Amino acid sequence: MLHAPLLEPRATLVPAAEVAGRRAGLQAVLAARELGAALIVQNADLYYFSGTVQKSYLSVPAEGEATLFVRKLAERARLESPLSGIVELTSPRDLPALLVERYGAVPARVGLELDVLPVNDYRRLQKLFPAVEFEDIGHDIVRQRAVKSPWEVERIRAAAAIADTVCGLIPGILREGQTEAEFAGRVEAEARRLGHEGIIRMRGFNQEMFYGQLLSGVSGTAASYLDTPLAGTGLSAAVAQGVSFKRIGRDEPVVFDFVPVRDGYIADFTRMFVIGDLPGELRRAYEAACHVQAAVVAVARPGVTCRTLYETALAAAAERGLAESFMGHGAGRVRFIGHGVGLELDELPVLAGSDLELAPGMVFALEPKFVLPGLGAIGIENTWLVGDDGLERLTLAAENIYEVG
Amino acid sequence: MLHAPLLEPRATLVPAAEVAGRRAGLQAVLAARELGAALIVQNADLYYFSGTVQKSYLSVPAEGEATLFVRKLAERARLESPLSGIVELTSPRDLPALLVERYGAVPARVGLELDVLPVNDYRRLQKLFPAVEFEDIGHDIVRQRAVKSPWEVERIRAAAAIADTVCGLIPGILREGQTEAEFAGRVEAEARRLGHEGIIRMRGFNQEMFYGQLLSGVSGTAASYLDTPLAGTGLSAAVAQGVSFKRIGRDEPVVFDFVPVRDGYIADFTRMFVIGDLPGELRRAYEAACHVQAAVVAVARPGVTCRTLYETALAAAAERGLAESFMGHGAGRVRFIGHGVGLELDELPVLAGSDLELAPGMVFALEPKFVLPGLGAIGIENTWLVGDDGLERLTLAAENIYEVG
Repeated sequence: MLHAPLLEPRATLVPAAEVAGRRAGLQAVLAARELGAALIVQNADLYYFSGTVQKSYLSVPAEGEATLFVRKLAERARLESPLSGIVELTSPRDLPALLVERYGAVPARVGLELDVLPVNDYRRLQKLFPAVEFEDIGHDIVRQRAVKSPWEVERIRAAAAIADTVCGLIPGILREGQTEAEFAGRVEAEARRLGHEGIIRMRGFNQEMFYGQLLSGVSGTAASYLDTPLAGTGLSAAVAQGVSFKRIGRDEPVVFDFVPVRDGYIADFTRMFVIGDLPGELRRAYEAACHVQAAVVAVARPGVTCRTLYETALAAAAERGLAESFMGHGAGRVRFIGHGVGLELDELPVLAGSDLELAPGMVFALEPKFVLPGLGAIGIENTWLVGDDGLERLTLAAENIYEVG
Repeated sequence: MLHAPLLEPRATLVPAAEVAGRRAGLQAVLAARELGAALIVQNADLYYFSGTVQKSYLSVPAEGEATLFVRKLAERARLESPLSGIVELTSPRDLPALLVERYGAVPARVGLELDVLPVNDYRRLQKLFPAVEFEDIGHDIVRQRAVKSPWEVERIRAAAAIADTVCGLIPGILREGQTEAEFAGRVEAEARRLGHEGIIRMRGFNQEMFYGQLLSGVSGTAASYLDTPLAGTGLSAAVAQGVSFKRIGRDEPVVFDFVPVRDGYIADFTRMFVIGDLPGELRRAYEAACHVQAAVVAVARPGVTCRTLYETALAAAAERGLAESFMGHGAGRVRFIGHGVGLELDELPVLAGSDLELAPGMVFALEPKFVLPGLGAIGIENTWLVGDDGLERLTLAAENIYEVG
């Protein structure tokens, strides 16, 4: 193994100061909830708190240093993670003894990610630690991760830059008569070349996403099981979202809803393309989407609730007479206008009817979209950073409708 | 919604007879385990038992017809699924009353997929059904799904055909000096055009995969957290598998390990490419991989245990003096030589030291591979169907090393 290339030189490792700050944030939760430790196991959370997704249990005590117990591959975890306490774990059965060795005792109350941990995995931990009372800390972690550090914001900017660059290449790719699948493949190839990592992590059970949604014309009106305003026909009922074999025609809206990932961090982005020209009804809906975006951006700042943003958006859509088609149509409509992004696509804040207040460092996608039955879907989506005085846009591509050919 | 294209014309819907047969298989499990019903919620299992992944609870009683309670999108579920009992569900809170209405009562003991269901989702079901005793049926479902129907085998053949076709296109794509990421993107674009669905479902917690592993030279020797013989450097520690920005050179092995998906069904496939020529040590390892494959195929038939296949493979690798590099190197080695494929990549049978016996209709990937530190990885992988007298190969591309340029 010694000479295997375990680190990509163009990747950015999570710095020690980041991991220390995140540990301190989690330890504040543990203190407030009177938990003696947390045991972190899920990939996105492992990466957040340790800098590696190597197969591990990360023990974070209420005070003091964390320890990463690695089943596979300890050598790689030592290169990827800035943690000093990295211990090889031959079998999960050894975990209780190793924790006692390291910390003197296993605490009576331990936090676990019960929002994502399957029941059988949980029961195995209960058998390993029969005296321990486990408590759910999934929501606390999600709350903590909603506020990004400046280092994390730079990672999201790098992901956003992939979307911006690919957007600029589409006029050279999009052709009348291409199937959505062919068009998507060529666009995705550009994203891969630029370093898109492919896997889009989502926290919700059964949630799945592949690159985003490249949908043309009426494909944009096909809703599905996903909690998204647009879903698409998909290549089969087994997937039921995304591209189909429909051929892209002239004068119909082409939605480029794209989720780039770099160094694990996600941005979310939508721009509209058309070969030829769009009907006036769709152009007016696009202007309405920009109007909704501007209305939300105008009120968004720290302390404003998600409900205020959501209601602002609904009112702005209604002003343009498009309330019925906003964020989907009929049973396909969703009751949010945006969502946090970070290591997962479905993070906080969810811009819906909730009391959660914006805070500096939060990053979210705002995606006002309209679904016009028989015509297609249209809208705009940017990734935004909450600053002290308002929002900063992280996806920088021009906000016009892109006309091709 | 009425005119939205909810079905892709080139997709194959799950026929009613398939769903009826699968329901009968599950009902046999329920009878044997004295369970009054099963409640199915996970995407792959929902698709298997209902033909749709629309957001649902599928109730399968010990006797009689199943009912799909759909939260989103009932209209689409009715088009995708051959089930006659499809009921719209406004809120999960309505589920107990709807079950009573449909079946007269909720059984005392109900099976759930506790191997994949997160704890918090499980607890919500416990609150909805306080009198019900839930039992894990995840393993029973996995066992049932391991044996494919002829209809399912045809779906896997269609997935395998994508791998075969893409394999034939690689000589026109692979160029010296390309990064692995660029090469992968262009290959993936061909797969997308042909209908690869993108999302690769895996059942194991934290398991992730994107297209497979396109690895060149020493990248093939980088092990990681995955339960795979090869993992790759990856584009960052956040993903820690797959392609990197390493440039593909002359005379080094290029692993094309590819996981195509059509109509939800997966095949798994590996062929070797080289620009120029391969060193003799790698050629000998490739011959050894073919020797291992032939040895396993020679003994595989219904009734033979996975352990026998695994030990046959280890012995065949040892005959060629390559025991130390078989299925990984050092701490990166895995203790299996193949795995079932179907709606998920990590199905039964796992070709490891287990007593599970092969049965007609099982489909698995057999992947003898060698990792030679400093040189790279090499091997072969095909998807095989267990027939009455032995194996049938479903991935049909020629088994030579493909020399380019």
